[in-house]
Amino acid sequence: MEERLRKQLEFSLEIDKEKNIVRQTHLSGHGRRENDAEHAWHMAVMAYLLREYANEEVDIARVMLMCLIHDIVEIDAGDTYAYDAEGRKTQKEREDRAKERIFSLLPDDQKAEMTALFDEFEEFQTAESRFAHAMDNLQPLLLNHSNGGSDWKEHGVSAAAVYERQKKTRLGSETLFEITDRIIRENIRKGSLPEA
Amino acid sequence: MEERLRKQLEFSLEIDKEKNIVRQTHLSGHGRRENDAEHAWHMAVMAYLLREYANEEVDIARVMLMCLIHDIVEIDAGDTYAYDAEGRKTQKEREDRAKERIFSLLPDDQKAEMTALFDEFEEFQTAESRFAHAMDNLQPLLLNHSNGGSDWKEHGVSAAAVYERQKKTRLGSETLFEITDRIIRENIRKGSLPEA
Repeated sequence: MEERLRKQLEFSLEIDKEKNIVRQTHLSGHGRRENDAEHAWHMAVMAYLLREYANEEVDIARVMLMCLIHDIVEIDAGDTYAYDAEGRKTQKEREDRAKERIFSLLPDDQKAEMTALFDEFEEFQTAESRFAHAMDNLQPLLLNHSNGGSDWKEHGVSAAAVYERQKKTRLGSETLFEITDRIIRENIRKGSLPEA
Repeated sequence: MEERLRKQLEFSLEIDKEKNIVRQTHLSGHGRRENDAEHAWHMAVMAYLLREYANEEVDIARVMLMCLIHDIVEIDAGDTYAYDAEGRKTQKEREDRAKERIFSLLPDDQKAEMTALFDEFEEFQTAESRFAHAMDNLQPLLLNHSNGGSDWKEHGVSAAAVYERQKKTRLGSETLFEITDRIIRENIRKGSLPEA
């Protein structure tokens, strides 16, 4: 087999492990906890369907691909919960090492492309990365809200912390931030989210 | 909330259920059985990385989206195993009903678009649908091969049946069919796949 294709298939098999990286969000219907691959799939479909709400015009294929690959580094680095302040201190170092190992399985040109796309998501400087982040926030919010905010309750998260994180959603989509804001207020009112 | 966005979010929440539709394929490392959302995510990433092997030029964004949504109907219709001859008799009727119910949650224009994309995949008449089918076949083949062909053994599948199914892969990608053929031969040799 040609070396190039061998490397592409090796990478394809390696990323299967993303299905074992479990997040804090629970599936709707008070289901089990979601994994990274499911989360990425859900984000990509939502990005396509909600693209009309992006603040800026986006290349939707690029957004979808960014959604699909943005958590691959967690195969090595693990999932860092959005409200885990300690874990977030070492997150970048862990993810940089993972990025190098995992994307190096690909042929050089594709390693460079996937690394650049991952970095673009993290750096949050392009229209595509801003809209992808809006999906990264909205997708678990929808699930959590459908479960009465139980993920927030379980982790003792405050509305202030949620608003801090959701700032990025506003930079990706004002319209989707409005919905987010409404959902947060409703959860404060219902007592699943203390204000501070 | 505007009716259009309300419908889009309702659909977005509904498709969360795809994560509960379990397939016959096991994850690599002799893991648990894979679900439809994970399978769709994996296919879409592979489609992007392997697009250079498509027999015809493809619009890769369209292929990826097709991969992402091609199993949504299984939320109602359930997964029909590729080698389940009885189940396949009623598959189309079950999936048509599901398609109508689930895509009707969307605004009319998006319902029409998603339905057309689903139908395009099923009808297998375009370059994009042919390459998407190659992914639908190659992704579980890779996992199953990494597990020593245990999914085939479990279901008593023959090489003849696998070749029959993999005809579609060849129409999407000659190169990926060559790899498929090599994997099938190796499994016949190792005894995990009886010839007939």
